[in-house]
Amino acid sequence: MDFTEEQSADVVAASFNNTSDPRLKEVMQSAVRHLHAFVREVRPTIAEWMTAIEFLTAVGQMCTKERQEFILFSDSLGVSMLVETINGPEGRRTRKGKLEPTAQTVMGPFHMTKSPERKLGDNINPVGNGTPLVVEGYVMDIDGKAIPHARVDTWHADNRGFYDVQDEAGIPAGTGRGLFTADDKGHYWYRTVMPRGYPMPTDGPGGKLVVRAGRSIYRPAHLHFIVEAEGFHSITTHAFVSDCEYIERDVVFAVKRSLIRDFVVINDAEEAKKFGVTVPFRCVRFDIVLAPKET
Amino acid sequence: MDFTEEQSADVVAASFNNTSDPRLKEVMQSAVRHLHAFVREVRPTIAEWMTAIEFLTAVGQMCTKERQEFILFSDSLGVSMLVETINGPEGRRTRKGKLEPTAQTVMGPFHMTKSPERKLGDNINPVGNGTPLVVEGYVMDIDGKAIPHARVDTWHADNRGFYDVQDEAGIPAGTGRGLFTADDKGHYWYRTVMPRGYPMPTDGPGGKLVVRAGRSIYRPAHLHFIVEAEGFHSITTHAFVSDCEYIERDVVFAVKRSLIRDFVVINDAEEAKKFGVTVPFRCVRFDIVLAPKET
Repeated sequence: MDFTEEQSADVVAASFNNTSDPRLKEVMQSAVRHLHAFVREVRPTIAEWMTAIEFLTAVGQMCTKERQEFILFSDSLGVSMLVETINGPEGRRTRKGKLEPTAQTVMGPFHMTKSPERKLGDNINPVGNGTPLVVEGYVMDIDGKAIPHARVDTWHADNRGFYDVQDEAGIPAGTGRGLFTADDKGHYWYRTVMPRGYPMPTDGPGGKLVVRAGRSIYRPAHLHFIVEAEGFHSITTHAFVSDCEYIERDVVFAVKRSLIRDFVVINDAEEAKKFGVTVPFRCVRFDIVLAPKET
Repeated sequence: MDFTEEQSADVVAASFNNTSDPRLKEVMQSAVRHLHAFVREVRPTIAEWMTAIEFLTAVGQMCTKERQEFILFSDSLGVSMLVETINGPEGRRTRKGKLEPTAQTVMGPFHMTKSPERKLGDNINPVGNGTPLVVEGYVMDIDGKAIPHARVDTWHADNRGFYDVQDEAGIPAGTGRGLFTADDKGHYWYRTVMPRGYPMPTDGPGGKLVVRAGRSIYRPAHLHFIVEAEGFHSITTHAFVSDCEYIERDVVFAVKRSLIRDFVVINDAEEAKKFGVTVPFRCVRFDIVLAPKET
């Protein structure tokens, strides 16, 4: 077989025929076919190919222990979200007549520290100056039955769009984070401040490409969750703020319609007193449906 | 449009709809579609996706001013060769009843230094201990008409598989390199030693992957050429040694049938004397056909 434009993918894929690891063989042969199809479609000049080489090299060289530019690049091309979707409940068999399990979305780079253990109702951001927020919900199975004592790990940016782990934040470690145990009805609740949307970093090649492409660099405001309970598939997800200006153009494509919630504005002083917050405050209900492990 | 497995490529491609540079838009939308198709096909686990992220990061971090691991990776997946093929004469219109222009192949990483100017017949590797080699040929147009005074730049590994620029080589800079001007009949010739095939570097992630895949890591023995003449498309190519053991499994897929030549063994002492070499020596004829610029 000669190396021609038409045969190149076959020639290169065949070179992996003797790869002993069957998964490596499958992945590499698929990668080769799609990569060659892409090159045949865009027909890069040699200078353009060199630009791609230099771009990928710069992405790799931007990475440090604290910064993973290839994940940012993967995020900004929707690849991370696609992988999450494939591995989430949508990638598994659904059951007719049952509740849809809560959709999976990206974990993001800010779950670097263990969230502090909290008691239900705790204020996880006592230093924030933003609008107070009450978060509550039930963890349940696909029959709508409570999952008692489910573990609810939550973290989110503050009213300025900063996480505690960011140098610029200047807030105590653990602010905006909490590891809760739902009660015997699967109910959890906590207090915090309204999160704000924030930009992806644009000091590296991944972010610069998004800017050059004229795309929005923002993530819409959201709360992160990892919810776990024995016998169920864990879920990594977000609750998105419906009235955030970036909701339709998340730079990492993590928004799924089913994860958008109204964060209702409440001006009732009696209600505020009940939750120990001031008016106006916001309130969101975010129920979590977990799929049983045998599905 | 929701982010689902089926729609992910459309959602992400649409985010580039407002990219003002039309070429960037075209390339990124195509990249997104092929990348998502690949991910949907192989259905990576989150751990596998992370392995890919770490691999690409390691490739980027292996790069230095002297070492371009992303090019090696591109080479080993046949992408560099595909780009050369698209940009070479095969990618242009051919003319019926005319000679086929010489095929393009990769430049490789060893054309780092300007080749020294040589006179026709010069011995470009006087320090080599291998079998003497006489290289000769004609540079011609697609009608077979001589291209007088064409510039023939050649470089190649020595009898141990080393280029002069490699630290291990221990030979003077310029050894195995020459920039010749063909005579008024388009004829060029020079003396050197038989080149040997050599392995791609396997101390980086690109080479390690080739090893893990159970592929051969070798390049078959070859001579490099860049041939230029005013009014013609320049050509970057190789002459491959037909009896090299690696000829059917070049790690970078640069072999094209039309570039393989018999390097004829000659034991005739009279012939040897004519060329100023010793017996046995080898001789190869490598004619170059250049396409005119207006095609």
